Amino acid sequence: MSAGNRSYRIAVDCMGGDKGPAEVVSAVRLALGDLGANDKLVLVGRETELQPLLDKARLAAHPQVELRHAGEVISMDDKPMQAIKSKKDASMLRAFDMLKAGEVDAVVSTGNTKVLVGAGTLKLRTIEGADRPTLVAIWPRRQGHFIMLDMGANPDATPEHLVHSAILGSLYARATLGIDKPRVGLLTVGTEEGKGGERINRTHSHLKSVGDSINYVGPVEGYDMFEDAVDVVVTDGFTGNIVLKTSEGLFAMIMDLVKVRLKRNPLYLIPGMLLVPLLRGVKSHMKPEAYGGAPLLGLSGLVIKAHGSASAPAIASAIRIGRNALVADLMDRMKAELAVANEKVRQAHHAAHKQG
Amino acid sequence: MSAGNRSYRIAVDCMGGDKGPAEVVSAVRLALGDLGANDKLVLVGRETELQPLLDKARLAAHPQVELRHAGEVISMDDKPMQAIKSKKDASMLRAFDMLKAGEVDAVVSTGNTKVLVGAGTLKLRTIEGADRPTLVAIWPRRQGHFIMLDMGANPDATPEHLVHSAILGSLYARATLGIDKPRVGLLTVGTEEGKGGERINRTHSHLKSVGDSINYVGPVEGYDMFEDAVDVVVTDGFTGNIVLKTSEGLFAMIMDLVKVRLKRNPLYLIPGMLLVPLLRGVKSHMKPEAYGGAPLLGLSGLVIKAHGSASAPAIASAIRIGRNALVADLMDRMKAELAVANEKVRQAHHAAHKQG
Repeated sequence: MSAGNRSYRIAVDCMGGDKGPAEVVSAVRLALGDLGANDKLVLVGRETELQPLLDKARLAAHPQVELRHAGEVISMDDKPMQAIKSKKDASMLRAFDMLKAGEVDAVVSTGNTKVLVGAGTLKLRTIEGADRPTLVAIWPRRQGHFIMLDMGANPDATPEHLVHSAILGSLYARATLGIDKPRVGLLTVGTEEGKGGERINRTHSHLKSVGDSINYVGPVEGYDMFEDAVDVVVTDGFTGNIVLKTSEGLFAMIMDLVKVRLKRNPLYLIPGMLLVPLLRGVKSHMKPEAYGGAPLLGLSGLVIKAHGSASAPAIASAIRIGRNALVADLMDRMKAELAVANEKVRQAHHAAHKQG
Repeated sequence: MSAGNRSYRIAVDCMGGDKGPAEVVSAVRLALGDLGANDKLVLVGRETELQPLLDKARLAAHPQVELRHAGEVISMDDKPMQAIKSKKDASMLRAFDMLKAGEVDAVVSTGNTKVLVGAGTLKLRTIEGADRPTLVAIWPRRQGHFIMLDMGANPDATPEHLVHSAILGSLYARATLGIDKPRVGLLTVGTEEGKGGERINRTHSHLKSVGDSINYVGPVEGYDMFEDAVDVVVTDGFTGNIVLKTSEGLFAMIMDLVKVRLKRNPLYLIPGMLLVPLLRGVKSHMKPEAYGGAPLLGLSGLVIKAHGSASAPAIASAIRIGRNALVADLMDRMKAELAVANEKVRQAHHAAHKQG
């Protein structure tokens, strides 16, 4: 998988993000310091745009930076099937091709999530035992962080998909948050057994039957997440995406409410100014650039998705997240543990049917 | 339905809330000033507990306050079917009996939501055309408020249920927020048609076909809600409940993060103290006691649910919300508009089948 002995090649899709390729090149500059001496970043995108940016950033002759031309760009409005057919030379798709061919070990992209998921699934395939990819997000809580998945790759998740998410998320939390036995919770509307409907009940019993592979602590509710009750929150991509966007919207609104009140009343001018670092601290706790990338787990290759509007530090962090996952040998471990867990679900399923 | 000409009787379930009957009696005292001169509040609960509280609050001989004894209490752990069978004399169930018998015009309760929904459905039945009740919440946005439903009464909502929610919520927004043509949005994961899965697509076309009854503006995402884009947000009870609880948890955490930082750094002591009214203002905007009650729409009788941990002002507001709904003749209007809308969905459905 890796090009040399513990050295890695990461393709960076430079196009398709909201802030354009200049932001990505700045990110590359930031990320280089944290890579291994033999690691390489392969920048994929339009040469006519990237070359001047590399020259300007004095990265054109950098031994760890390569440029790979791709003539087209996936836009935020593109649909997966259509894009794959009509934009074969798009930077995102070229990066997938390189990953599939073993020319790189990971792909980092700020591009269109839907195309990333769709084209990733078609070009790279999912790993044995995971039917669909799942998008991870790292969320802040009072102390530290927790992982939530799926953030929108698979809106119609079945109980089996949710079990795969639990296993993949658990492995990921171990690799990135450094938690030995991450506590896994299933997001639902009430913690008593039987609440939340048929799909939640079936997922709950599946999760109990894979007890060894994951540290499943049971159902959790929306407010439990911020209370250090679990490290991995499992939900379907519909709920996860809505919860993520509602939370982003709510947080932005609260900050605005504070700002508007600070400005409206001149008495608040001085105390408000004194509190600027405090509010900035809260803001940085809530949107940690240190966790700027979310991996698309379950694909046979390592793909890291950065936010469409990610800044250079956030994209640099996504590159770092990619490298850390490679160092932790995340992909091979995921394949092995997923196979074990699937076997257990199958056995439990058979046992239940024999009884019934 | 009403006992006299424009005068109303409202049953108040005094038991089963987290703060006990004393809080409810305080709420009654607060609410009395806002009622009509001939309106009556019927306090339902254990006489041995309520009578001393009424004496103490000098409400024992109040012409607008009645006491109705009920020997049992629904706890937060009770299950609907079990509670209906084994706790026939529970205050919540007695209040439903009175509503069904026409002795009161509305019920206000702080009790167990699941039992309220289950027992309400069994005892009162749903109105013609609404298969399931739906729980409304009023949410703050930057300016004013919007309505979201369902908050958890019906986790497995079908497209038809979601259409009923849209109609009921629209009527309710008109009656309570005073908006002439409330804009209705369908909560999903992306605003392009086709995103969000089969259930969202079918709901979307149903909603378009009832265009006259509601002002449907299309799909909305989590962050749109806070941007004055819609007045009524429609979602299933699973997503709605999780979004509600996540938002509550997130807001509490942000306030805690601010408080912890204020305390940790002595430099923040003075500016922090000066900003106390500001933070209190934000808090009261986010949790407006003025909207302390959420009606359980779709039942044949008017039931207002107050939060389990509601304070006296919030419960008083729930009583007020109940009376306003009676004054607005909400129930009869809902029945009429729901019948019209259902007929339109049926016609659109037939037309689509003939074409297909």
